[in-house]
Amino acid sequence: MAPTAAEQHTRKAVGLAARDASGHLSPLAITRSTGDDDVVIKILYCGICHSDLHSIKNDWKNAKYPMVPGHEITGEVNEVGKNVTKFKTGDRVGVGCMVNSCQSCESCNKGFENLCLGIIPTYNLVDLDGTITYGGYSSMVVVHERFVVRFPDTIPLEKGAPLLCAGITVYSPMKYHGLNIPGMHLGVLGLGGLGHVAVKFGKAFGMKVTVISSSPGKKQEALERLGADAFIVGKNDEEMKAAMSTMDGIINTVSANIPMAPLLGLLKPNGKMIMVGLPEKPMEIPPFALVATNKTLAGSLIGGMRDTQEMLDLAAKHNVTADIEVIGAEYVNTAMERLAKADVRYRFVIDIGNTLDKAAATTTE
Amino acid sequence: MAPTAAEQHTRKAVGLAARDASGHLSPLAITRSTGDDDVVIKILYCGICHSDLHSIKNDWKNAKYPMVPGHEITGEVNEVGKNVTKFKTGDRVGVGCMVNSCQSCESCNKGFENLCLGIIPTYNLVDLDGTITYGGYSSMVVVHERFVVRFPDTIPLEKGAPLLCAGITVYSPMKYHGLNIPGMHLGVLGLGGLGHVAVKFGKAFGMKVTVISSSPGKKQEALERLGADAFIVGKNDEEMKAAMSTMDGIINTVSANIPMAPLLGLLKPNGKMIMVGLPEKPMEIPPFALVATNKTLAGSLIGGMRDTQEMLDLAAKHNVTADIEVIGAEYVNTAMERLAKADVRYRFVIDIGNTLDKAAATTTE
Repeated sequence: MAPTAAEQHTRKAVGLAARDASGHLSPLAITRSTGDDDVVIKILYCGICHSDLHSIKNDWKNAKYPMVPGHEITGEVNEVGKNVTKFKTGDRVGVGCMVNSCQSCESCNKGFENLCLGIIPTYNLVDLDGTITYGGYSSMVVVHERFVVRFPDTIPLEKGAPLLCAGITVYSPMKYHGLNIPGMHLGVLGLGGLGHVAVKFGKAFGMKVTVISSSPGKKQEALERLGADAFIVGKNDEEMKAAMSTMDGIINTVSANIPMAPLLGLLKPNGKMIMVGLPEKPMEIPPFALVATNKTLAGSLIGGMRDTQEMLDLAAKHNVTADIEVIGAEYVNTAMERLAKADVRYRFVIDIGNTLDKAAATTTE
Repeated sequence: MAPTAAEQHTRKAVGLAARDASGHLSPLAITRSTGDDDVVIKILYCGICHSDLHSIKNDWKNAKYPMVPGHEITGEVNEVGKNVTKFKTGDRVGVGCMVNSCQSCESCNKGFENLCLGIIPTYNLVDLDGTITYGGYSSMVVVHERFVVRFPDTIPLEKGAPLLCAGITVYSPMKYHGLNIPGMHLGVLGLGGLGHVAVKFGKAFGMKVTVISSSPGKKQEALERLGADAFIVGKNDEEMKAAMSTMDGIINTVSANIPMAPLLGLLKPNGKMIMVGLPEKPMEIPPFALVATNKTLAGSLIGGMRDTQEMLDLAAKHNVTADIEVIGAEYVNTAMERLAKADVRYRFVIDIGNTLDKAAATTTE
């Protein structure tokens, strides 16, 4: 019997799924449906973002199980829908935190699909066709071409994967708030998955970069390997005092509630602190700390597709990639345990292409 | 005997001074010293800013008595120092919140003298010559020409006086944060001395302006007299809900601690709230309210001298002035009592030129 139209548009894949709030990941057979505007991507690598851990553990109380996480996806185009013009089979591509949006609102029209109220995140949301989106811990993903980016030849797919979330998350506000000018002084608060990429982009922009961290042990690495110009221990009053009113901007990657007034004090007049982390409780902001010398506290959530492509192209030009530890699919639950203890410098990336099928075949679930 | 050099550079004046935290104002003989870069100004009008009331009552614990308040000064040039090039005797001029700065730091060089760490406010600070600065509730003031602005012929000196503080305070952030684009939607939070001028500048820029106020009784006036397009009562949940995600920016003139999350909810993605008031306690800002759709919370303190002149020229072009109640110098203490009860729409302005000498002569103190 000939396949139905629905069957013609269905592709079988395998994912690593959490079934409940234990967050334990195990293989799951999934299907992907294709459309005329879609790009079918064979996934080769997927980064593990800290938000994946929050999501599978249902920390944000919005989990839809089974959940296949992952939104730092790189791979190769396998096939394209008939309307697709930007990509062809064999292209090296990436997919980040979103796979669709309304594509017609003011935000979308301005290139901020990330701010569209109709955004479809890469996993854990009901897609336009009624299915739950499954992320990049899987063998294949199908995405509207608007939400696929071309991966520069010079960036290895594994080292570039984290740029699709961590990279654009820090790049977008740096561009949008004018914190990308040579000679400016950038503070990077927190040296993890986001922070270490922010340091690299700051240097790529020709800025002076100071890391502010609670971990004195990261100093040598920040200065010698990542290229930061200075390192301040946030709890060291003398170091903080010496750096008062010296920074044009701070990228705040910390998701904990820490006192904000001393950090705002590091900014020059007209300085800007950009929050890209999400502390659980409200921040306490003394009005004087903002008003007295025209300071800005802004939030920023990932970035738009045009900016994501621009970020990748700039990363290629300046050789900006993430520092990663490549793991096999069978190691993913151990990696999550280590991530919960911040025991990674700075991103796990799953070698999907070489290990997922094997892991799926040998697992009895 | 011939006058000494010091005497040659001294001018006698009279001011209205507070002697203690009662804040009671009464005449005081003062002297002003002149220099080669200075402009000697015969004061004709001075607005009463709410911060004058805070200052004379020592609410901010930094009062230096005797204190002559006032930083919304308009008048005529009486004489100029030999280096002065911008002004000549008879010119109509204004002086705002500052009378000097270091004139050499990064902020000064960029035109933000208001953010200079060496700023000399118009009153209640030790000036470079060691004297305490006395403000505009006085017959004469002597100011470095950089801190004097030319008053456009078409703006009456009394109606224009409040622009030198209230006007620049709202104009500067509107310009700096790009909230001056025709067709944009501006929210003005609080309809007082600052707010009513913000409404007028918003309309001058060709924006849609919505007033958000706790006083339903101000609706008619806001819409019919000030030209606002809409009016929302902040405590009316339905009105607030209907306006969610509609505003490009909000000028927040309120100095009370009010819940910020609902107000930030009024902003579109990428929207900006600018604080120009100074609530006493820290604000509680839920990180999600900023991060989820790239919102900005910024503070702003008056504005630089170049922007102040630009603001006045724009005000002249669009006929923007403050709504005022002109009072005689003898009424100033009563005016302060009324101001404490917010019983003024929207600014008291003292007719210094016609009433101060008489008030001083008839007072026995």
